Order: sequence, then C-alpha cells, then structure tokens
Amino acid sequence: MDNVIKLSHGDGGKHTEELIKNIFYKYFNNDLLVKGQDATIFQAANNKLAFTTDSFVVKPVFFSGGNIGKLAVCGTINDLIVSGASPLYLSAGFIIEEGFSLENLNKIVKSMSETCLESGVSIITGDTKVVEKGKVDGIFINTSGIGIVLERYKQKPIKEGDKIIVTGNIGDHGTTIAIERYDIKVKDKIKSDCASLYPFTEIIKDNYDSIKIMRDPTRGGLATVLHEFSNLCELGIHLMEEDIPIDRGVIAVNELLGFDPLYMACEGRMVIVVEASEAENILKKIQEFNGGKNAKIIGEFIKESRNTIFIENYFGGKRILPPLEGNMLPRIC
Amino acid sequence: MDNVIKLSHGDGGKHTEELIKNIFYKYFNNDLLVKGQDATIFQAANNKLAFTTDSFVVKPVFFSGGNIGKLAVCGTINDLIVSGASPLYLSAGFIIEEGFSLENLNKIVKSMSETCLESGVSIITGDTKVVEKGKVDGIFINTSGIGIVLERYKQKPIKEGDKIIVTGNIGDHGTTIAIERYDIKVKDKIKSDCASLYPFTEIIKDNYDSIKIMRDPTRGGLATVLHEFSNLCELGIHLMEEDIPIDRGVIAVNELLGFDPLYMACEGRMVIVVEASEAENILKKIQEFNGGKNAKIIGEFIKESRNTIFIENYFGGKRILPPLEGNMLPRIC
Repeated sequence: MDNVIKLSHGDGGKHTEELIKNIFYKYFNNDLLVKGQDATIFQAANNKLAFTTDSFVVKPVFFSGGNIGKLAVCGTINDLIVSGASPLYLSAGFIIEEGFSLENLNKIVKSMSETCLESGVSIITGDTKVVEKGKVDGIFINTSGIGIVLERYKQKPIKEGDKIIVTGNIGDHGTTIAIERYDIKVKDKIKSDCASLYPFTEIIKDNYDSIKIMRDPTRGGLATVLHEFSNLCELGIHLMEEDIPIDRGVIAVNELLGFDPLYMACEGRMVIVVEASEAENILKKIQEFNGGKNAKIIGEFIKESRNTIFIENYFGGKRILPPLEGNMLPRIC
Repeated sequence: MDNVIKLSHGDGGKHTEELIKNIFYKYFNNDLLVKGQDATIFQAANNKLAFTTDSFVVKPVFFSGGNIGKLAVCGTINDLIVSGASPLYLSAGFIIEEGFSLENLNKIVKSMSETCLESGVSIITGDTKVVEKGKVDGIFINTSGIGIVLERYKQKPIKEGDKIIVTGNIGDHGTTIAIERYDIKVKDKIKSDCASLYPFTEIIKDNYDSIKIMRDPTRGGLATVLHEFSNLCELGIHLMEEDIPIDRGVIAVNELLGFDPLYMACEGRMVIVVEASEAENILKKIQEFNGGKNAKIIGEFIKESRNTIFIENYFGGKRILPPLEGNMLPRIC
C-alpha cells in the first residue's frame, strides 16, 4: 500500500525527502522552511524573545472542533500569548506510526498550516520520525515556538481585590475528548474550544498596565490555573459559581462521568487577572471579540485563607476547590 | 509501585509538579527554567538566530556510549553548530510510557544536564506527557534549539576542487545500535560516537572564509550528506576509500549484517567542505582537538558526472554510491 506511512519515510533518504516535499512543503510553504537547512536562520526584530515547547498525544487524533495538528499549533501559540509575547515562528516534530494514513497526515498538516496563517506565524523548521507499527499510538506532534515579547508587557504582583476574567466557556475541550473516548451519545453538539488566542493580543496591548498575569487553562483546567495564581501571591480566591461560563451540555456530560468541568482542559481560553478598577472595561472589550462573547468576571482575590480557592453557589453555600490530585482523563492534549 | 511513571505524572496537577521538581529542576537547574512559565523569556545577545527541532525515538534507550537523553541534546546542538550557530538554549519535550522506570528517567535527565553543561547551553523550557502502557515504546524526547549565528559565518557555493573533511570515524553510532538491536556478540567494544560538536566551534571561528558548508551525517550517514552537497552544487564527488576513517570492527559488523557503513548514522561527526588550499591546515587543527584525531580529507568535488558520487578502492576500481533508498535500520536516533 502506498497511501500509508512506511518506515522508509523516516530513514532520512529518498522517501523522507518525498514526504517532506509532497506534504510538509506543500502546506508549510515559507521561504525559511523550504531552504531545508538543519537549523533555520532568522532575523529577530527585537531582542527579548519567548521560547516554549509542547508535545501533543491527544486521543482521538481527530475530534469535534479540531485535530492533533490544529491543537499543536494553537497550544504553542497560546503559551506564547499568555506569556506576553507575539508568536513568530514554530517548529514541528512528527513521530508517526508505520501504517498511518497519508490522507489523515495530509489533513493534519493542512489544518496546522491554516491555523498558522490565521495567527501570522510560520513553521520554519521540522523533523519526522517513523516508528514500527504498535510502538506509538498513531501520531504525536511536538511544536516549539518563538515569540517577540510585547514591549511593555510585564507580569505584575497580584493584590487583594484583583479580578479574574475568563474569556469564554470552560471545559469544552476536555469534555469533547471524554465524549469521543467513552463514545457517549449527546443530543447537542459539544465542540472543542481549540483556537488560537492571537486575536486577544490587541486587548493585551491596550491594557498593559491593568493586566497582572495571564494563563491558558489546559491540562488541569481552570482550577489548576487558579491554584497556580494563588500560590504565586499567597492570597485566597473567591469564585461565584453562577458567573463561571459553562455550557449546559458540558455540565451534563461531566455529571454523567463524575468529572468536574472546573478541572477539564480548555484549549482556546485565557484566564486573566486584572486590576479591579479596570475589570469591567477589559471584560467589555473581550466580549466584543470573536470568541470572547461568553467572557465573564468569575471572582476575585481575597486576603482570608491564603492558598485556598472558595466557590460560592447559588444558595450562598461555599466549597473548596482542592488541587488536582487524581488523573481525570489522560491524553486530552 | 512508586518508582515508575504513572499516568497522573502527565495530568498537569500535583504529581506532574512533583516530577518536574524532583527530576527536571534537579538537573536542569537554571534561573530561566525554574521560573516555571508557559514560555521562557530571554534576552538574545544578537539578532540573527538559528532555530532547529528534532524528535528522538532511538531503540534501545540506553546504548554503548550514550542514551536517548544525551543523543537528544547532542543532536540539536550539532544541528545548530553545522548551521554556523553557537548553541544557546534548548527545549525538552518528554513523551513517557506509563510504567517507565523513574531511575532510568533520572539517568537520562542527568546525562542531558551533563551534556548541556559541556556545551554551555541551558534547557529553559520543557513539557512532559505520559501515555498509557503499550501506546509508546518507553520514552521519546523532542529537543528544539536556539543558537546565535556566528557573526561572520556564511554558507558558500561549492566549487570544483573543494575538499571534503570528516572529523572522525564513520558509522559508529548506527553500528552500535545495530549490534544492540540484533544482540550481536562482538569482541572489541564498539561505542556510539554520540557527542557534542561544540569544541569544533573554535575551528569554525578561525576559518570563516575557507569553510563552504558543514553537516552532521546522522540518518542516512556520510553518503546521504554527500548527495545533499552534490545536489546543491551540481558537481560530482570523488572519494578515496582508503582515506575514509572507519573502525575495523564497524566494517566487520556491517559486512555481517549486509549494511554499508557509509550509510550508517554518526552522532558526533561533522562533514566539512573547505577550499583546497586550506584543507591541510584545517585538517591539522581538527586533529589536535579532542574527538578529532581520526579526521581525514576523504575526497573532492569534480566536474565530471554531476550529482554522482564515485568511490575509488585500493586497487583503482570505482563504484558509485547511490542515494539511500531502502530503510537500513529504523529508530537509530
């Protein structure tokens, strides 16, 4: 069969060259990559750079709202953006199982290319390894990324009263993966939120002074990011359950599975800590953006009970969100 | 068992944090990494940078002369060096099988740290994913790297008469992997040449004007690099078999297996094209270096039969080295 990946596609010889030309160069078509060097040389427009890496092993490879390729590009772009950098260049390292469908590889690479284009980034260096059937589960992708740090952005200490904004519904990605993994029949379409946070760069640029810290709540979800914030500043956090935007279908599926959506991964959301006085202004701007209409202020930092995250429900009852301990669902990204 | 990797080590919660602190921060102990940011911000000392990526899936994970971790660090450092850059920062992305021994992970990470130290580079960003038992073969590592381009280095067009230097014995790494994979009993110790090419940076700096191009002959070996050179300049290459440095044990093992050492991977060698007038001088300098004592001038570029590589044996007979077509041995790096 000639429509699948063979071990020789990874040997560095003629077949590797064919794969690179027919699939990778076709979609990742930029001057820097097609030079085909061992390392790609580029001119940095600024001398403060951000560097990040992520490997993606998501299962299934294709899911409602995206695939491993789109996820790999968004994940690394988003890590750069929440670090206050404008994404510039990515690398792409593929580890592919012998027998993997070339048609599916083509789809994955195409969606990587489209996602890059939307965010103004280029994949300028890459690598492909092929391993024997059964020695890797389909395809794993590593993307590393370089971004230019936004000139005036600086992470700032969190203070009592600072507000927490999330840019959209929580838990969609993790729940989508759970639905496909456990083959759950759902009436309403639940889709991964997998998306580049690139459009929000505008808002960051307009609000340098009021933004304290940003994170994308991937593995471990919203609760894990809030624990990170709380540990950083040694303050407590008070959340209002009714203000946390969660899709009703997502709540239902998580109840069925015994998961808590607050710990479920998002792949296109941002959690932003802002000064209280500017919170409403910033929220309004986020809501005007594509992908930001469900943004909400979900809580604030409090002095009492440091390192503890309280969530208050509709009836005034409070519970504590503990740090993530058990493994809810492996391979969500 | 608490001495193995568990799925929860990859969930982004408490156990992931423990793994990062107990193993990764212990060895990759630099100010930039331990900030624990999604992306690490650094000041580039120069604005012309090189960027490269490589995934490593070598089997076995530990081999004579190295392991997957040392290989991952050397491989990426070497790609930067042959591109004319001084390596600066690396990323490390781990994909680990559930049940993998923590003791072995510790050994791998330790050797990565030692190799970084020798070459003056730091691992400043990382990522760990854990997949279920049987879904990945032990451990795969991606390293991406950023280097500062040496100010005056430039790849130059190859001309007729230019000489080809290799910095040491050919095929040691690939042959070592073959010996371990096929469990061949050999009397003399054959060891991988896995090493950082960092010491040779000095020679590159001293010979900017005479060095035309450099490559590290990894997958596909010396022959594949020579084909790349030949395609670039559309000249032929004439090699003298007796001048190509190959260990006698390596020749014997390859004869036994029906492999050609000229196509076997090296992981600590460099192939350099230099102006004929400077070839002897540069060779002498390389031989003075640790790791360069077996360096040789192995051939030159010729006008006849462009894109063809001739190898002349002890008796004056010539054969042609074709491009690599079949897969000799998967997962050598």
